[in-house]
Amino acid sequence: MDPLDAAMNKCGADAFVHYATGEDADMRYLTRFVMHDPFVFFKRRRQPGTIIVPQMEAERASRESIAAVMTRTQAGLPGITKKEKNPWTAAAQMITGQTGKTLLVSPTLPAALMRALEESARVVVDAGTIEQVRAKKMPEEIRLIQAVQKKTERAMALGISLIRNATVRKGVLYHDGAPLTSELVRTEVHKQLMDDGCRAVETIISCGEDTAFPHIIGSGPLKPHAPIVIDMFPHDEATGYYADMTRTVSKGKPGPQITEMFEAVREAQQIGISHIKAGVLGADAHNAVVDHFKSRGYESDTRGFIHNLGHGVGLQVHELPTVGPVGGVLEAGFIVTVEPGLYYPGVGGVRLEDLGAVRAKHFADFTKFEEKMVV
Amino acid sequence: MDPLDAAMNKCGADAFVHYATGEDADMRYLTRFVMHDPFVFFKRRRQPGTIIVPQMEAERASRESIAAVMTRTQAGLPGITKKEKNPWTAAAQMITGQTGKTLLVSPTLPAALMRALEESARVVVDAGTIEQVRAKKMPEEIRLIQAVQKKTERAMALGISLIRNATVRKGVLYHDGAPLTSELVRTEVHKQLMDDGCRAVETIISCGEDTAFPHIIGSGPLKPHAPIVIDMFPHDEATGYYADMTRTVSKGKPGPQITEMFEAVREAQQIGISHIKAGVLGADAHNAVVDHFKSRGYESDTRGFIHNLGHGVGLQVHELPTVGPVGGVLEAGFIVTVEPGLYYPGVGGVRLEDLGAVRAKHFADFTKFEEKMVV
Repeated sequence: MDPLDAAMNKCGADAFVHYATGEDADMRYLTRFVMHDPFVFFKRRRQPGTIIVPQMEAERASRESIAAVMTRTQAGLPGITKKEKNPWTAAAQMITGQTGKTLLVSPTLPAALMRALEESARVVVDAGTIEQVRAKKMPEEIRLIQAVQKKTERAMALGISLIRNATVRKGVLYHDGAPLTSELVRTEVHKQLMDDGCRAVETIISCGEDTAFPHIIGSGPLKPHAPIVIDMFPHDEATGYYADMTRTVSKGKPGPQITEMFEAVREAQQIGISHIKAGVLGADAHNAVVDHFKSRGYESDTRGFIHNLGHGVGLQVHELPTVGPVGGVLEAGFIVTVEPGLYYPGVGGVRLEDLGAVRAKHFADFTKFEEKMVV
Repeated sequence: MDPLDAAMNKCGADAFVHYATGEDADMRYLTRFVMHDPFVFFKRRRQPGTIIVPQMEAERASRESIAAVMTRTQAGLPGITKKEKNPWTAAAQMITGQTGKTLLVSPTLPAALMRALEESARVVVDAGTIEQVRAKKMPEEIRLIQAVQKKTERAMALGISLIRNATVRKGVLYHDGAPLTSELVRTEVHKQLMDDGCRAVETIISCGEDTAFPHIIGSGPLKPHAPIVIDMFPHDEATGYYADMTRTVSKGKPGPQITEMFEAVREAQQIGISHIKAGVLGADAHNAVVDHFKSRGYESDTRGFIHNLGHGVGLQVHELPTVGPVGGVLEAGFIVTVEPGLYYPGVGGVRLEDLGAVRAKHFADFTKFEEKMVV
């Protein structure tokens, strides 16, 4: 049975309702339609989904969306707004005019719309049916993610080649006579991704002590003999699917602490990968890596390994499942990252991240990119 | 008084709560912090705002956010999750532990979090205080938007020059020996914006009959003697502020219907601009343009002028105020577009869009780019 129908049956709802922009991953999954202003999706029990869009979007929506399309005018909004000036109440009246009086709503439905719906309907908040459905990818989705991963590796190769081919002068990398900055590498990588139909935001190109903070994106000239973390998570503009990968490199040998951290992280990744298959708890894979780091003398609290081993990737760069201390059972068809890292303020950080699919008996690693620190 | 404090006073709330990613415009405005996973913002009455972030984001947040920073651990989450497995309930307990028992929440707070907060607090949904505050820009914000507008005009110049310099063969534009496509112009324009530190998505480069649908982004080879609508709305990556502009051009003279539509739209824009100043209703400016189009024989329903005359621009490309049939009083410091258009399926469309500030006695047009159809 359709998972939304099952959720509706369970609570006796007449329809499921979501309200978001097309950038919202659930909305994109349900509609395959991208609109930058929020719009309504509803699905009556045992019926296909419908979106309600402005007149000016109706033609494009009919061409692009997998949901049926209704204009706001067809849904009666002009008549409603003559009497009802509060836009949330008006939207709620428009929705209940189409759906019935017991509604299952998305957990991320705006609070103001829920309050307005509650004026005339019984509202049950869904526990995250679509988010859970999205975790398990269909073969077509897996192909789309693999395609993005390939383009991401091309971009990674470009980024690393800029570092490898740089010259070193007074402790700074140079490219074409100017300092090679984090910003320059980021821009070049983003442009190549753009040529490949992909879009990346805030690609991390951090260097030196900044690498001790996993989400500092980096700025200024890159330096030799220091870790450079390159973490990219682009998505295909046409489909919305993401990839995610990280490599840590150094132009010239880094200090011994970083070299040791790199080795420990590389081993940790192999350990993580070896634990991942259908039926295993995400928590077990994570804890195996924590144990490994501990055996090597590294912490896993506010320093050392300070984040989850991995996460799902799909229409969001971070989605279900969790591969961390509270991670549940992994299922075949989940797409996850395996990304151990070590972070020591004052020293630096190392992270290696691959992306792949959970299979019945193993982790199918989609990432075919070498892990070599010194370039 | 701080507008959030005023809203809290009105309903007796102890604190205001928001929960969103840093891409959410209200969240970015309140915190100036961008994080791709959702996080909590709270502000107790008469106190500065605080964000609650994961440990791994704490250092970056302290550097970048204007809000005070607390980690989830400091907010007690680890202890809570030992007993409470539902993540929304756990988040709600973490929040109420910091705030008190009467809460004003953002209208876009996720429904699931609101339900969880309601288990232990009285929850009032805010009417949109931050969205309203954001409409009126501070001088610094206006400078940031003008800077993006300038870069947008450079990108528009590049896009139009590709069309102007194209050669025509068998009814198709050519560039460097290959057909000049919508995709190619879009990519070139996006790359230049990237060099300027800006990011654009789904820039519209539509041609011919596609231009009759204002939000079809366009694809395939561009043609001569036909309208080409170029609508770009990039934002500065560092600040998050948007610009928005549209020009319609044709390589070689288009048909007489399009030429007449272009003239009518150009006049409409002047009429719209002449009506905009502080104290005027957005609806009045819109209706003046509708009247103009009607006097020229054009409709304003499902064909003709089918959208609002304009909208606010800031941390969102579409934000308050509305300059359309329900538009309220315009205030000095509002930043709005003026973008009349005409759309006839089977014929095509024309749109011209400028961006500027509402001032006491006039509309300060930030857009300094010529409006010339034939290139």
